[in-house]
Amino acid sequence: MSEPRMRVTACLIVIGNEILSGRTVDANLAHIAKELTALGIRLAEARVVSDDEDAIVEAVNACRARYTYVFTTGGIGPTHDDITSRCIAKAFGLDFGRHPEAERRLLAFYPPEMVNEARMRMAETPQGAELIDNPVSVAPGFRVENVFVLAGVPKIAAAMFDVLKPLLKGGPPLAVRNVTLICPEGTAAKGLGEIQARHPEVEIGSYPFFRRDRPGTTIVLRGEDPADVDAATTALFALAEELGVEAQELAVGTSTST
Amino acid sequence: MSEPRMRVTACLIVIGNEILSGRTVDANLAHIAKELTALGIRLAEARVVSDDEDAIVEAVNACRARYTYVFTTGGIGPTHDDITSRCIAKAFGLDFGRHPEAERRLLAFYPPEMVNEARMRMAETPQGAELIDNPVSVAPGFRVENVFVLAGVPKIAAAMFDVLKPLLKGGPPLAVRNVTLICPEGTAAKGLGEIQARHPEVEIGSYPFFRRDRPGTTIVLRGEDPADVDAATTALFALAEELGVEAQELAVGTSTST
Repeated sequence: MSEPRMRVTACLIVIGNEILSGRTVDANLAHIAKELTALGIRLAEARVVSDDEDAIVEAVNACRARYTYVFTTGGIGPTHDDITSRCIAKAFGLDFGRHPEAERRLLAFYPPEMVNEARMRMAETPQGAELIDNPVSVAPGFRVENVFVLAGVPKIAAAMFDVLKPLLKGGPPLAVRNVTLICPEGTAAKGLGEIQARHPEVEIGSYPFFRRDRPGTTIVLRGEDPADVDAATTALFALAEELGVEAQELAVGTSTST
Repeated sequence: MSEPRMRVTACLIVIGNEILSGRTVDANLAHIAKELTALGIRLAEARVVSDDEDAIVEAVNACRARYTYVFTTGGIGPTHDDITSRCIAKAFGLDFGRHPEAERRLLAFYPPEMVNEARMRMAETPQGAELIDNPVSVAPGFRVENVFVLAGVPKIAAAMFDVLKPLLKGGPPLAVRNVTLICPEGTAAKGLGEIQARHPEVEIGSYPFFRRDRPGTTIVLRGEDPADVDAATTALFALAEELGVEAQELAVGTSTST
């Protein structure tokens, strides 16, 4: 199977022992994945790494060389286990210290009795980092080159993503069509494979489901050129008719939000 | 920060474009993470990769060399985009073909009119793979060396994990204590860092939350030796008293399920 040429790519690095121990369920991947897809950016990979310096530095360096954009979530709070910022500095070989504007924002936000060394750690960034506003709780995220460092709390991560969105240059969003077949996946699989072979420029995904104990299969067709996607979709409806299977289109158009 | 010596490690590789596009929210990571933690196995990393042969082979080979166990979810159904099994064969340099026992099970399960080439693809495994029973929908997962290949549908993945659990050799489960401080994270951060420095054999995680708009912080203390964890927890209660902050223990014992 070929992949549609969504040339702008991204990787998400989720940082935190709490995700890997099962204590906390990550919510940032699903949100950021949808946002990127809508911007015409292909989330090509995601990694979840522990609060370990070597693991974070290695993941950041592997991914920033490979993808257009890298996003990290987690590990930028005030406690000893928040080590993302200095890991980013290490990954880039940059000095690490207080960012004057971040310091100013924190000092303006906290009443004097709440200002302490630990909270002021949240003003530390790699040298030359560009701040990403935090509309929820002030302590900023930041950007170094193609790496965007966000908070782990989903509400804050989402707010920071909204702030940085204008900095991202997406590609043309993919054309997408969704068709549900009222049959088990295996019934349509051979024909689907043939359609994929005849339309290599369209990515055809097949997702089985059960609804009121009846099996169905949602087919997602994505591609750069809407005409290609339409042609593959027409072939899919013909296949359904040939199989005597009901087919329903769920959404039409070039929305990429599914 | 040091990490407690949970010597048996694992990595989860989630395979599927639908997770990376945001279409589907992964549920396997959280479940498998909890199960592994309870078995005394540290999930050290997770990766989400696309339905791309090179990406899957590379991730499997990188992770199987590094971790005790590797689990994959997704991509073992009957359609053209289900390529996990042949990627595992390629990663190990093994021949790939029908597994006689898997074939027998599928032929016994499907009524003759449902048997087709696409469904029988679900009987294909790398040469010499050991099957993992699928109590939900028959088509099996499999194991090659330290790599366990599971379905993507969460109900099936969980059932397969239950089946393979007896094959895993975990380490001693970590001792864990959970203490909630009724204060913002930054208030306790300095003292927490000092406790971490004095108890390097205990992993101390700090997780802020808001409950009815009041800030709180849950501290998770984990370590191999319950006495170490108890000593760090005693220090934490002393810190709370010093700060005039309410502290509540959420659960006591050696459960590792949090």
